[in-house]
This record gives sequence, C-alpha cells and structure tokens, in this order.
Amino acid sequence: MEVGVGFDENDYLSCCGSTKFAKEMAAASPFPSYHRALTVAKHIWFNIVDVNGWLQAFSAHPSIGQPRPPSHASATSAEWSIGEQSTALATSTASSLQELAEWNARYMQKFGFVFLECASGRSTESLLAELKRRYANKPIVEFEIAAQEQMKITELRLGSSLQVKKTYLLQLILIPLLLLKVKGQKKFV
Amino acid sequence: MEVGVGFDENDYLSCCGSTKFAKEMAAASPFPSYHRALTVAKHIWFNIVDVNGWLQAFSAHPSIGQPRPPSHASATSAEWSIGEQSTALATSTASSLQELAEWNARYMQKFGFVFLECASGRSTESLLAELKRRYANKPIVEFEIAAQEQMKITELRLGSSLQVKKTYLLQLILIPLLLLKVKGQKKFV
Repeated sequence: MEVGVGFDENDYLSCCGSTKFAKEMAAASPFPSYHRALTVAKHIWFNIVDVNGWLQAFSAHPSIGQPRPPSHASATSAEWSIGEQSTALATSTASSLQELAEWNARYMQKFGFVFLECASGRSTESLLAELKRRYANKPIVEFEIAAQEQMKITELRLGSSLQVKKTYLLQLILIPLLLLKVKGQKKFV
Repeated sequence: MEVGVGFDENDYLSCCGSTKFAKEMAAASPFPSYHRALTVAKHIWFNIVDVNGWLQAFSAHPSIGQPRPPSHASATSAEWSIGEQSTALATSTASSLQELAEWNARYMQKFGFVFLECASGRSTESLLAELKRRYANKPIVEFEIAAQEQMKITELRLGSSLQVKKTYLLQLILIPLLLLKVKGQKKFV
C-alpha cells in the first residue's frame, strides 16, 4: 500500500528539521512502500541536503537529558524527542543529569552543534559514555557521525509517522465502508 | 628566527577567515620557525576549528573568476584573492568567465558555499574543469575537499605574510643600525 499520501512539508519536517529534506520528501510523495520512502529519504539526506541543511536539522533537537525543544522545533518534533529520551530520563539521577548537562555544554562548545545520538531505549549512563568517547573526535569526523545518527532518528520517526497516517487513512476508508455496509444491511433487512 | 612577532588576530584573519583560527594563532604566536607556525595552523584548522568556523572561512572568499570580495572580508584578504586569481583572469575570455560564473552559481546552489580551490597559477580552463568534476561529489565529500583547499590557501598566505613581516622587522632593526653606523662614521670622520 502507498505511504505518505497527504503528507506535506511539515510532516517531514517533524522527522528531520532540514527544510530542504522536507521539501524534497514532500515533492517525492507518495511512495509505493515504506521501504521506498526510506531509500529516498536516505538519498536526499546524504546527497541532496548540504552541510548547512545538516546543521539546520541538528539545531531542531534539544540537548539529550533536557528534552525542552529549541523554540523553532515543531510541536510534533518536540513530542518525538520526549518519547525518544524517555528511557534516558527514567534511568537518570540528579547527578547523572547534571554530568550529562555539563558534557553536553562541553560538546556544544567544541563542535558547534548539539550532541546527537539516537537515544531511543538508551540509558543515561550509556549516552554519557558515548558522549565522552565521541568528544575526542575531530570536528569533521563528529559531523559525519551526527549526520548518521540524525538519519537513524529520521528513520524511526518516518516509520512511526507513516504508520500513524496509514492507520488514519485506513480509518478514513474503512469507517465509511462499514457505515455503508450497516446502512445496506438496514436497507435489506 | 622567530616568526609572527607582533602578529595579531587581524593578521591571521587575512590568511584564513575563521575568527577561531585567528584567535588561536594569535594566542600561539610567535613561533620559533615558519615550519612550526604551519604545523600549529594545520592543527588548529583541522582539530580545533569546528564546521561553523570552516563555513565562516569559506564565506570570506569571492567566487573564482569574480575577485570582488564579500563585504565582510578584510582588505588584505581581498588583495590576496586578486593576486591568487591573477593567472585565471589573465587566461580568461568573456565566454569562459561567463561559464565559470554559471558553474559557480550552480555549485553554490548545490553545496551552500563558494567553490574553493587554491587558484594560484591556475588557468580559467583548468579551474572550470576542476569545478565540473567536483560538482558531482556528495556535499560532505566536497566540504572536506574545500577545507583542504582552504588550508593550501592559508599556507600560501601565511608564507607571504610572515615573509613580509620578517622583511619589515628586519628593516625596523637594520635601518636604525645603519643610521647609527652612518652617524658614528660622521662623528669619527
């Protein structure tokens, strides 16, 4: 079944905060399958979106451990962030959150963008260990890793988002059909 | 002999338009040799300056074939650009300049920063061929190539700049010595 029917730029912007990515995805919609949507998304992200677009997408994320979204992030993107960080927040203590905040600030100071990691299902401890390990990287190396992590996040969000819309569309089609059936049954009883 | 004596941030900013690069170089000055200055410059550029700083440095360059500098480039940087592009301009025709301008615009549209190539001694034809070849690259690949080219330009400018200052400093030392000698000779004639 086709996916991305009725999707507009804002839907894709919630999955990845680059306006170029969102425009290109909306222009390519709908897709014959989720697999195809994902292939196109990866192509756009790694081949069409330029480095300014990567930085724009990174800037739509809150710091890990502090899921208050940047003011320019969409409401849906902010909701995704809270969900993706739920394990980290559930496994955190006041001191581990404090340490994470300090390392996030150091990371931002060194690299000029937020520490980006697909946080879904990750504990605060493992995120902190990953941040400290990656802090030693050269800026260009870290930039590429962040782009890979952004794609993982986009993939998860696209999956959830397309699934939500698919259920919604199925409801839009099935409910009238059921109503027609009920009406028909009534008519012929 | 020490190099970079009396160099400030503006001197380094003319060699590379990243303010972080300029600050770090000024803080590390003077250097025991030109070789050491270059080693430190490479370390700062590739390990300390983040991707925003790379973009800032790229934005200080005019498009190749159109050496009118961006308004925020320093006067010295603008002079360097004119000198570096002198061969390209001397070997250009109206139509080759037009083609270069068109490809520069396409490049900027795709990558989000100016086509950067150490133009010193290069003809318009060879620059255009290089631009067309690199246009096929992925944005992240091109970003790294541009950073390598920026370092080549910085190296040339540092060499010229340190040489100029060395000559100037030698003059500052030698002229008073010569004057003293002349004065002394007059005294003892």
